[in-house]
Amino acid sequence: MDDRIHEHAAVLVDWSARIESGDDVVLSVDEGAHDLAVAVAEKLGDRGANLVNVYRSDEIQRAYLQAHDDDFDDDPEYERTLYENADSVLVLKGTRNTAGMADVPDDRQQAFARAREEVREARLATDWVSTLHPTRALAQGAGMAFEEYREFVYDATLRDWESLSEEMDRLKTILDQGDEVHIDAPGTDLTLSIAGRTAVNSAASVAYDSHNLPSGEVFTAPADAEGEVTFDVPMTVRGNTLRDVHLVFEDGDVVEHAAAAGEETLAALLETDAGARRLGELGVGMNRGIDRYTDNILFDEKMAETVHLALGRAYDACLPEGESGNDSAIHVDLIADTSEDATLSVDGEVIQRDGVFRWEDGF
Amino acid sequence: MDDRIHEHAAVLVDWSARIESGDDVVLSVDEGAHDLAVAVAEKLGDRGANLVNVYRSDEIQRAYLQAHDDDFDDDPEYERTLYENADSVLVLKGTRNTAGMADVPDDRQQAFARAREEVREARLATDWVSTLHPTRALAQGAGMAFEEYREFVYDATLRDWESLSEEMDRLKTILDQGDEVHIDAPGTDLTLSIAGRTAVNSAASVAYDSHNLPSGEVFTAPADAEGEVTFDVPMTVRGNTLRDVHLVFEDGDVVEHAAAAGEETLAALLETDAGARRLGELGVGMNRGIDRYTDNILFDEKMAETVHLALGRAYDACLPEGESGNDSAIHVDLIADTSEDATLSVDGEVIQRDGVFRWEDGF
Repeated sequence: MDDRIHEHAAVLVDWSARIESGDDVVLSVDEGAHDLAVAVAEKLGDRGANLVNVYRSDEIQRAYLQAHDDDFDDDPEYERTLYENADSVLVLKGTRNTAGMADVPDDRQQAFARAREEVREARLATDWVSTLHPTRALAQGAGMAFEEYREFVYDATLRDWESLSEEMDRLKTILDQGDEVHIDAPGTDLTLSIAGRTAVNSAASVAYDSHNLPSGEVFTAPADAEGEVTFDVPMTVRGNTLRDVHLVFEDGDVVEHAAAAGEETLAALLETDAGARRLGELGVGMNRGIDRYTDNILFDEKMAETVHLALGRAYDACLPEGESGNDSAIHVDLIADTSEDATLSVDGEVIQRDGVFRWEDGF
Repeated sequence: MDDRIHEHAAVLVDWSARIESGDDVVLSVDEGAHDLAVAVAEKLGDRGANLVNVYRSDEIQRAYLQAHDDDFDDDPEYERTLYENADSVLVLKGTRNTAGMADVPDDRQQAFARAREEVREARLATDWVSTLHPTRALAQGAGMAFEEYREFVYDATLRDWESLSEEMDRLKTILDQGDEVHIDAPGTDLTLSIAGRTAVNSAASVAYDSHNLPSGEVFTAPADAEGEVTFDVPMTVRGNTLRDVHLVFEDGDVVEHAAAAGEETLAALLETDAGARRLGELGVGMNRGIDRYTDNILFDEKMAETVHLALGRAYDACLPEGESGNDSAIHVDLIADTSEDATLSVDGEVIQRDGVFRWEDGF
């Protein structure tokens, strides 16, 4: 087996999930993630954890949903108790066909998701971590050769997370102490209030309340956006590509919008509810292992030398106790390249110029 | 997908497991049984059952056990409650390598099995059914080409179970009412008491307390064996082939034994405990879809025109309430061909001659 799969398993079990002897672990194995599951099982055995393997297959799920009459039982206890009694859930994504659910009607998928809401809550209450095993289908979805994609995934995943988390902590400290962020780039001149908000150091570990591997971003919940912003990294939303989205904000609200592609989708998003016209997240990508766009938000928003803003819902973790942030049914991330002719400033002080932080060589 | 896989799924879900709307079903999917799992999921969706997929992989289990220090946690609650709260467990066997656990020490496998005893009990307390999806590895183990093996498995599995269960019921009635069985064949002249014992109609359905698909045998618990028997169907026991085992019984006990191959293994079996020298089961194979030996007891003992006797433990279901049958740590089935120069008689009346029952054409 490729050594990188063993390294991936070690990062997942030790850095991300912090598995200890006696932990009750559910390993959720996608159709195409078998090899990573074998490597993870070896680590779990070595650490003295318990292991239950759950099988996650789009083909099985499609067959089940297609045949069902839509009237799903709510909250099956046998599934919920598995997660309620588990310490950790390790989700190994690795589909063999990214279009495997393409012909299952959306409303049936949503009805099933609603019926499994308590199961999902029980799973999210564990020390869960989701990661991705590179498959040919995922490589194809990213427009890459298989080995090229594997190199991409492992470059993003097999980081020195300890050191990256320390670097991200520098940015978190600056954002936590700051009141106002300014982003300046071609087509972008945007001011955001972050006063009283708390940034999250998303270091791909449950110890940081960060549940995706890879991760590598610092994010907070902004308010009162003022100015304009251009998102020059393309993004597929609801099956449609958004390209060069341009938004103008006044008093926190989008007052003008345009896009080189996907304008209808953008308009529909903005009309979802009042919160959809305001920002819920400002994130700064800091994973230098991710150097290209692959149309997978798990990777794209962590890309170094980018910032992303989300229309819609804010994360509670960023808000003062008892204060509600922007509320919305949506949370759609849009990404801007800050690698050239760009600055990111906090309270008037430049903290990143052309993708380089002030504590880095070349600033 | 091969139509036979869909038919197999329908037999499993409807005839064997009797799945109904709202049933909480655990589907245990072996590495190589994915396609059958897809077909079963479709049936479960159609019947309105709930579905949790568990992944069973020798490669994962090997990696876990090899890395573990042997000190397994007893009875992990999260795994046990999954089965305690389930109505049915459908086990889809289909390994990709029958030697996948070959280098895991026996004592480690046994230590793990002991630690999971309560989990196993909870699983066996459900309406469980175990079946087999043909894989290349299983074909290889049976010494067959893949398509040849698939034909073999589906011939054995896709029976008219309703009709076979009715035929088996005829034999059950004869055995339930009879006092003494006599088997006469080349190298065999054996008398067994079955007075007061109850035969099981093993019709591959939970409705018949029969948990394997395929099945197709009627079995009971004999006593007081007297005479000699030759088992001319070979059998692999503990990795060694037993061939032409010949046993002589007096007052129920083996008093002489010989074998053309595997004599040491046979001697070791007989010395396990006192019960290992007595018989715990008399079974009559009645599945005419199974016409050849494949060294897999799931199929071999159901082969039409054979009888099998087990050294060791008897099944409680065959015994009068409160009466204990033969007790032993072992239960080893040995098979004799009754297709030529053979009769099976109950209380002096021939019920099968040369493999043909008295109610069949050609008797």
